[in-house]
Amino acid sequence: MAATSLKTFEEIKLEKEDGIAILTLHRPDKMNAFTGKMMQEMIEAFDITDADDDVRVVIVTGHGDRAFCAGADLSAGAKTFDYDKRAGDGEAGRTASEDIQRDGGGRVTLRIFDSLKPVIGAINGAAVGIGVTMQLPMDIRLAADNARFGFVFNRRGINPEAASSYFLPRLVGIQQALDWCYTGRIFPAQEALDAGFVKAVYPQAELLDKAKELAREIADNTAAVSTTLTRHMMWRMLGASHPMEAHIVDSAAIYSRGKTEDAREGVMSFLEKRKPTYPVKVSDGMPNFFPWWEEPEFKWIGGDGS
Amino acid sequence: MAATSLKTFEEIKLEKEDGIAILTLHRPDKMNAFTGKMMQEMIEAFDITDADDDVRVVIVTGHGDRAFCAGADLSAGAKTFDYDKRAGDGEAGRTASEDIQRDGGGRVTLRIFDSLKPVIGAINGAAVGIGVTMQLPMDIRLAADNARFGFVFNRRGINPEAASSYFLPRLVGIQQALDWCYTGRIFPAQEALDAGFVKAVYPQAELLDKAKELAREIADNTAAVSTTLTRHMMWRMLGASHPMEAHIVDSAAIYSRGKTEDAREGVMSFLEKRKPTYPVKVSDGMPNFFPWWEEPEFKWIGGDGS
Amino acid sequence: MAATSLKTFEEIKLEKEDGIAILTLHRPDKMNAFTGKMMQEMIEAFDITDADDDVRVVIVTGHGDRAFCAGADLSAGAKTFDYDKRAGDGEAGRTASEDIQRDGGGRVTLRIFDSLKPVIGAINGAAVGIGVTMQLPMDIRLAADNARFGFVFNRRGINPEAASSYFLPRLVGIQQALDWCYTGRIFPAQEALDAGFVKAVYPQAELLDKAKELAREIADNTAAVSTTLTRHMMWRMLGASHPMEAHIVDSAAIYSRGKTEDAREGVMSFLEKRKPTYPVKVSDGMPNFFPWWEEPEFKWIGGDGS
Repeated sequence: MAATSLKTFEEIKLEKEDGIAILTLHRPDKMNAFTGKMMQEMIEAFDITDADDDVRVVIVTGHGDRAFCAGADLSAGAKTFDYDKRAGDGEAGRTASEDIQRDGGGRVTLRIFDSLKPVIGAINGAAVGIGVTMQLPMDIRLAADNARFGFVFNRRGINPEAASSYFLPRLVGIQQALDWCYTGRIFPAQEALDAGFVKAVYPQAELLDKAKELAREIADNTAAVSTTLTRHMMWRMLGASHPMEAHIVDSAAIYSRGKTEDAREGVMSFLEKRKPTYPVKVSDGMPNFFPWWEEPEFKWIGGDGS
Repeated sequence: MAATSLKTFEEIKLEKEDGIAILTLHRPDKMNAFTGKMMQEMIEAFDITDADDDVRVVIVTGHGDRAFCAGADLSAGAKTFDYDKRAGDGEAGRTASEDIQRDGGGRVTLRIFDSLKPVIGAINGAAVGIGVTMQLPMDIRLAADNARFGFVFNRRGINPEAASSYFLPRLVGIQQALDWCYTGRIFPAQEALDAGFVKAVYPQAELLDKAKELAREIADNTAAVSTTLTRHMMWRMLGASHPMEAHIVDSAAIYSRGKTEDAREGVMSFLEKRKPTYPVKVSDGMPNFFPWWEEPEFKWIGGDGS
Repeated sequence: MAATSLKTFEEIKLEKEDGIAILTLHRPDKMNAFTGKMMQEMIEAFDITDADDDVRVVIVTGHGDRAFCAGADLSAGAKTFDYDKRAGDGEAGRTASEDIQRDGGGRVTLRIFDSLKPVIGAINGAAVGIGVTMQLPMDIRLAADNARFGFVFNRRGINPEAASSYFLPRLVGIQQALDWCYTGRIFPAQEALDAGFVKAVYPQAELLDKAKELAREIADNTAAVSTTLTRHMMWRMLGASHPMEAHIVDSAAIYSRGKTEDAREGVMSFLEKRKPTYPVKVSDGMPNFFPWWEEPEFKWIGGDGS
C-alpha cells in the first residue's frame, strides 16, 4: 500500500501507510534541527494520529541519511536559549502568554506521553540535545548503525530538558543517565544498545523497514483498544506508589474488555487458529473509566534569579 | 529430608521440605491452566506459609515437563473473559459480591506481594498470560531452558492484568515491557534472561534442585526476621518518593534488630567462623513498627462502558 | 597539579587536585571500617566540597590495596549493633538526643544524596555492609578488578540500611537487589559490572586515574551550575509520579539558565570550536527556584518491640 499524506506541514511530514503513521522530521538543509515551528507541528501530528482509527502505530524518524535531529537550531547564536530575546522573532513559536516560559521540548514529550497509539522511534543518524530527549517518551527505539546520541546540555551551559529527568533514569538507570548528562559526550548506537536505551540496531538501509515490521506485528495481531490501554497503564503506573493502583485499573479494564466483541474474537480466533479482526475502535470504544487519571497542571516556579 | 504435605488442595500441591515450601500448580491434563479455584488455593497457600515459622522460603513451580502455567483456561470459549457470564458456573470462584469484579490474577499477585517469606519462581515450561504475570511479584525467577513466556493479552482482545503494569516496567524497563505486551509474542528463556526477567536458566532436569539450592543458601545463613524485613523494605520502597522514607524505616529496624539475640548471634557466629542459629521467629518476633505501611483499599472505578 | 588538603580529619582524608576533591576513607589498620567518627567526618567533608566553588567533582575511595571499606567495625563484638549499649563509649559518635536512634549509614547516604557536586565512587577492594551501601547515592561507581561487594546484613541478624531499600532496587532492579540482600553473599567486580551496579572495572593500579579522567571530562567541558541542576533533577525525579513534575522544573531551569553568560558561552564556544569557560558559580549563581523541593523530616516510628 502506498503512503498517503495525512496533512502538509512545513518542517515535518506526516504520512499513513496501511495503518501505520510515519512522522518524519524534515528540514533537509538543517539536519532536521528543532524549532518552535517543528514543536507545534509535532504536537498537531499526534492530535491527528490519535483521532484517526486507521492509525494503529506511529513511527517517528528523520529525513535523510545524516540525522534524526541535530538538536536545537543554533543559528540564533548566543541568544539561542534566551526565550525572552527570541520571543519576538517568531521562530520559537511561543505566542500564547501562558506558554512563553514552558520548555518547548517538554511540550513535545508530554504530548507523545499522551499519545493513544504506540510510538516507535526509528533513529537514523545524529540525535543530539532535543533530538535525543524527544525520544524518551516513545515506547520502543530502533537505531541505525550510524546513529549517535548526545545529551549535550551541560556542554552548552544549560540543562537536560523535555522532562528527561523523569524519563531517562527510568529507561537506563540513574548511573547511566548521569554519566551521559554529566559528560555530555556523543555516543554510538552500540552503547545505546548495551545500555538498553534502544531495543535493536540495524543497518541504516533496513531501519525503516524493521520499524514497519514491528508496527505490523502489533497492528495485525492485537486489538486497538488493548494497545491504547496497555500504553497508558504501563507508562502511568511508572509513577504509582503501590500495585493496588494497577489492580484497580486492571479490574475495571478486564471486566469491561472481557465483555466486548474484541475479547470474544481474541479467544475464538486463537482457538480457530486464524488471524483476528477486532471491531472496537479507539475513537468511540474506550471503556468508560478511561482516562482514569487526573492531568497535573503546569505551574511557574520562578527562574529569574540568575 | 522427605517432603511432607502442608495441606491437600485440588489444583495445587503444597509441600514442605527442610524449611522450604514448594507450591506446585497441578492440573496435569490442562497444562496447569489457571482457574478461580487455583486462585483461591494459591491465596490460601501463602496464608499457610506465612504462618509457619519452619517455612523460610517458598518455591512456586508447575507440575510436569510441559508447562509452568498455560494461562487462563479457555475451555469456556468466547465467554472466557466475561466475568458476568461466568459468575454462575462456579469456575471463576468469585462468590463474594465485593470481589466479583476484582481481577483474579491481581488478587494472586497482591497476595504474593504481601508474603512474609521470600518467593522463588521455578519456571519449567510454557508460562503464558496469567502464567507469566503471576510471576511478577516473586522475588527471583529461575527458568528451565525450555521455558517460554508470553504476555498475550492484547492478542486476546483484553489487556495485561495482575498488576503487571506496576510490576513489569519495574523489572525489565518500560521499553521491554511494552515490546512484550504490544506484540503479545511468545519468547524463549534466553530472551527472558537477557532482559533480566529471569535470574538464571538451567536444564529442566536441574531446575528445581537449583531453586532449592538458592533457598538453602538463604535459610542456612540468614535470620528469618531479617529476610521478612528486607522483602518488605525493598518492595515497598519501590513506591517511595524520597530516600528519607527508607531512612525512617531503616532507623527503626536497625535500632530494634540491633538489640536482639539475632544480631548478637550474627556477629558472634561471624567472628567465631561458624554457622549461625538465629532464635527470633517471624510469628512473634517482628519489630513493633511492622507493618509500617497502610494498605491501600480496592475501589471500583467503572468498566461498563463498552 | 599537586593535591592539597582541604582539612585534616582523623579517619578520612580530604584533598583537592585541580578542581577535583578526593575523599579517602582512612583507617589503615582496620580496612577502613566504618565508625561514628567516620560518619561525622564524611558529612562534614561534603559540607566543605559543597561550599567550595573550585570543587567540581568529588571522588570517594578507600586507603590502601585491600579495602574500600570493610563495613561496620565489629571490634565491639556482640554489642556492635546495639546502639543503646554503645552510646556511652563514644565510638558511635551519637551524642545529640535527636540523632541517637537514626541509622548512621543513612545519615551518610542522605548527605551524599544532597551533594551539590557530582560524586564518583572509586571502589578499590572489599566493600561490605555499610562499605557498599554508602556507595548507593553516588552517581557513578568505578571498581578495581579486585573489588568485592557484600550486602551481608541478613547474615548478621540485622537488615540492609543506609536507605538501601530506596536506592538499590532503582540501581539494579529488585530481583538483583533481593538476590544480593537475601543471600548476603560476597560477589566480585565482574558480577557488579554485569548487573550495572558499577559502570566499569579497571586494574587496581589504574582505578584512581580513571576516576580522575572521568571527573576531568566533566570539569573541563560543562558548566558547574548545570551539573548541580542535573544531579538534583535526575535523582529527585526518581521519586516523581508524573513527567509534569520534571517539566515544571525544566521550564524554570531552561528559562533561567538560557539567559545566563553560561548559555551564551556554551553556544559560542561550540560554534567557535574552543573549550568553554563558564563564569557562573554554584555558591551564588543557582537559579532562584533552587532548591524547588521540600525536605521530608525524619520521624521515629518505633523499634522497641523485639
